[in-house]
Amino acid sequence: MAEPVRVMGICGTYSPDTANGRMLEIALGYCEELGAETVLWDNSLNTLPFLGEDGCWSHPVVEEYTGLASSSDAFILSSPEYHGTMSGVMKNHLDFLSFDQTTDKAFGLMSTLGGQSNSNTLNHMRIAVRWIHGWAVPEQVAVGNVKSAFDDDGNLMDEKLDQRVRDLVASVVKTAEYLRGNR
Amino acid sequence: MAEPVRVMGICGTYSPDTANGRMLEIALGYCEELGAETVLWDNSLNTLPFLGEDGCWSHPVVEEYTGLASSSDAFILSSPEYHGTMSGVMKNHLDFLSFDQTTDKAFGLMSTLGGQSNSNTLNHMRIAVRWIHGWAVPEQVAVGNVKSAFDDDGNLMDEKLDQRVRDLVASVVKTAEYLRGNR
Amino acid sequence: MAEPVRVMGICGTYSPDTANGRMLEIALGYCEELGAETVLWDNSLNTLPFLGEDGCWSHPVVEEYTGLASSSDAFILSSPEYHGTMSGVMKNHLDFLSFDQTTDKAFGLMSTLGGQSNSNTLNHMRIAVRWIHGWAVPEQVAVGNVKSAFDDDGNLMDEKLDQRVRDLVASVVKTAEYLRGNR
Amino acid sequence: MAEPVRVMGICGTYSPDTANGRMLEIALGYCEELGAETVLWDNSLNTLPFLGEDGCWSHPVVEEYTGLASSSDAFILSSPEYHGTMSGVMKNHLDFLSFDQTTDKAFGLMSTLGGQSNSNTLNHMRIAVRWIHGWAVPEQVAVGNVKSAFDDDGNLMDEKLDQRVRDLVASVVKTAEYLRGNR
Repeated sequence: MAEPVRVMGICGTYSPDTANGRMLEIALGYCEELGAETVLWDNSLNTLPFLGEDGCWSHPVVEEYTGLASSSDAFILSSPEYHGTMSGVMKNHLDFLSFDQTTDKAFGLMSTLGGQSNSNTLNHMRIAVRWIHGWAVPEQVAVGNVKSAFDDDGNLMDEKLDQRVRDLVASVVKTAEYLRGNR
Repeated sequence: MAEPVRVMGICGTYSPDTANGRMLEIALGYCEELGAETVLWDNSLNTLPFLGEDGCWSHPVVEEYTGLASSSDAFILSSPEYHGTMSGVMKNHLDFLSFDQTTDKAFGLMSTLGGQSNSNTLNHMRIAVRWIHGWAVPEQVAVGNVKSAFDDDGNLMDEKLDQRVRDLVASVVKTAEYLRGNR
Repeated sequence: MAEPVRVMGICGTYSPDTANGRMLEIALGYCEELGAETVLWDNSLNTLPFLGEDGCWSHPVVEEYTGLASSSDAFILSSPEYHGTMSGVMKNHLDFLSFDQTTDKAFGLMSTLGGQSNSNTLNHMRIAVRWIHGWAVPEQVAVGNVKSAFDDDGNLMDEKLDQRVRDLVASVVKTAEYLRGNR
Repeated sequence: MAEPVRVMGICGTYSPDTANGRMLEIALGYCEELGAETVLWDNSLNTLPFLGEDGCWSHPVVEEYTGLASSSDAFILSSPEYHGTMSGVMKNHLDFLSFDQTTDKAFGLMSTLGGQSNSNTLNHMRIAVRWIHGWAVPEQVAVGNVKSAFDDDGNLMDEKLDQRVRDLVASVVKTAEYLRGNR
C-alpha cells in the first residue's frame, strides 16, 4: 500500500493489562505484519473522564484521544462481556467518538467472556459502530472461558481462534484501505 | 402494602441535572404517589469510579451504591441513547450491580433521544437486566426530541407520554411487591 | 392452584418431531408435574399459512391457533437459531399473535443451536414478546450442539441443562398464575 | 463498470404489492440508474415453502430462488416490522440462503412501520446478514407511518427519506463492486 493503514486499538477494560488488552496486542501485532501502523490506547495512562463530567470535551486526554481517532483509518474494539453487553468503559470510549472520527472507517470487533462464548457484546458493538457510520467487518471474535484461553507466553492456545483473529485483522486492514479511498 | 416498596432511580447521565434526571424525578414522584419510598442516586455528588480502577470494589461510594441497591426492591433506569445504545455512564452503573442486588427485582426502563424516538437503548438495557436476573416490566418509555419534551415547569408536554410513565411506574411497583414475596 | 394454568408450546421448526419439539415435550411435561394443563401446537398437523396470504386471517387453522392462544395463560417458545436469530417458522407463528392473546401472559424461551450455544435467538424472542406485552421470565435455556444433547430416550444428557428447563418451567407457571390474577 | 452489478430485492411481505414491495421498486430503480441489473423476487408468483417442509430443499421454487441469489452480487431487504422484529416471511426467505449465496456480498436494509419509526428490524436483519457473512452497509432506511408515506404516484413524499434511499443504493452498488473483486 502507498501509505500504511493506521489502526487504533480500544480496550473495554480500564487498563489494557488484561485479557482484552492482550487480545488487542495480538491483533495489532497481526496488523503490523500486514504493514499497518498501530496504536493501543492505554486508558490506564491516559484516562478518559466520564462523558458529561464538567469540561470533559476540552479535557486534554479527550483531545488526544479524539485526535488519534481522527488520524486512524481503522479501529479494533476489544471488550469484556459484562451483564450481556459491552462494558461501561468500552461504551464511554465510544461515547467520545462521533462521525468526524468514524465515518467510513473499518472496525474489527472482539470480546471476552468468563464463561461460555456468546455474541451479545459483539452484536451491541456492531449496532453502535453502525450508528457512527463505521463499517464493522463480518469477521468477529469472541473468546469464551477467557481465563484459560492463553498459554504462559500470552498466546491463544486455540489455533482456530487465533486464525479467526488473523482473518479479522486481514479483513479490517483491507477494508480500511478500500474505505480510505472513498473518504 | 405492609412495608413500602423501595425504588432506586439510576441515571445514565453523569449528573441527574439533565432530561434523564428529570424523567427519574417524575417517575419517582409517581412511585411515591403509590406509596413507595424512593431514592435517586446522584452520581454528581457520589461519583462511581470506573469498574476496573484500582481498588474500585472497596471504594466507599461503590459500597454505598451497592448497599442502596441491595436494600431496594425495584430500579428505574433512565439513559440517554448515545450511538444506538445506552450511555457508558449507565453501563458503568450496571457493571457495579450483580445478582445479589438485582435477582428477582423489578426494573422500569426509560430512555431519551435527541432526535426521533427509538428503542435500541431500551432493548439493550432489557437484555442486560435479564442477565442479572432482574425483571424488566413490558411497559417502557422512550422520549424522542427530548430538548422540546418538557414545559417550563419541567413536566412532559405530551400527555400520552406522561401516562406511559405512570403506567410504567404502576407496573414496576406492583411487580416489585409481587417479587418481594418470592425472594 | 384453583384452576390449572394453561401452557401452550410453540415450536420454531416446521414439525415438532425435532429437537425443538422434544424440548417442548420435556418442558410441557414439567409443567404438568406442577399441575398445569398443556398443549403443544403441532404445525405439521395444523399448518399455519404465511401471514399475508390471501384470506389468512380467516383461515380455519389460524382461528384454531389464535383461539388456543387466547385460552392459554402462558407460552413456551422453542426455536432453532438460524442465521443468528429465530427461524422464520417461529416468527410466522408469533406474527399471528397479538395483544389479545398475549398481554400480561408469561413466556418461557428456549433455543437450540447446531454449534456452540448463543443467545441471539433468546434475545430477539425476548424483544418480540415484550412488543406484544408478554412477560418473558428471566430464566431461559439455550441448547448448544443440539445433535448430541439427548440420550436414546430423548432426555437431556446434561443434568444442569435439564435443571435449567425445570427452573424455567417453574418460573413460567408461577408467573402465569400471578399475571392471571392481574388481567 | 465492466460488468453490471446484479442486485436482488427480497420482500418481507407475502406479496410485493405492498409498501415494502414499493420500497424495493424504488430502490431497484435507483440501482438501475447506477447501471446495475436488478430482480425483484416475487414471492406471490413463486412462493417459497416454509423451511422444514418435506422436500423443501429440492422444491423447484427454492432452487430458482437460491440460483438467483447465487448469481447476485448484492441484496436489498425490505421488511415490515412486526412485533419488534422482521416478519416471518422475511426470515423464511433468509433461512433459505447461506454462505454460498451471501458471503462477501453487499446488503442494503430497509423496513417499514405502521407507527413511528424504529430500528429493531434493521438491527436484527443486520445481525442475521453478518451471520451469513454478508456486508450490510451502514446506510439504512426505516419508513415510519408507512400508510401515509407515499403520494398517489407511489413516490416517497419525504424528500429526505427518498435521498436516504438513494444514498443506501449508492453504497450498496459501490460496495458490491468492491466485494466482487475480492471474492
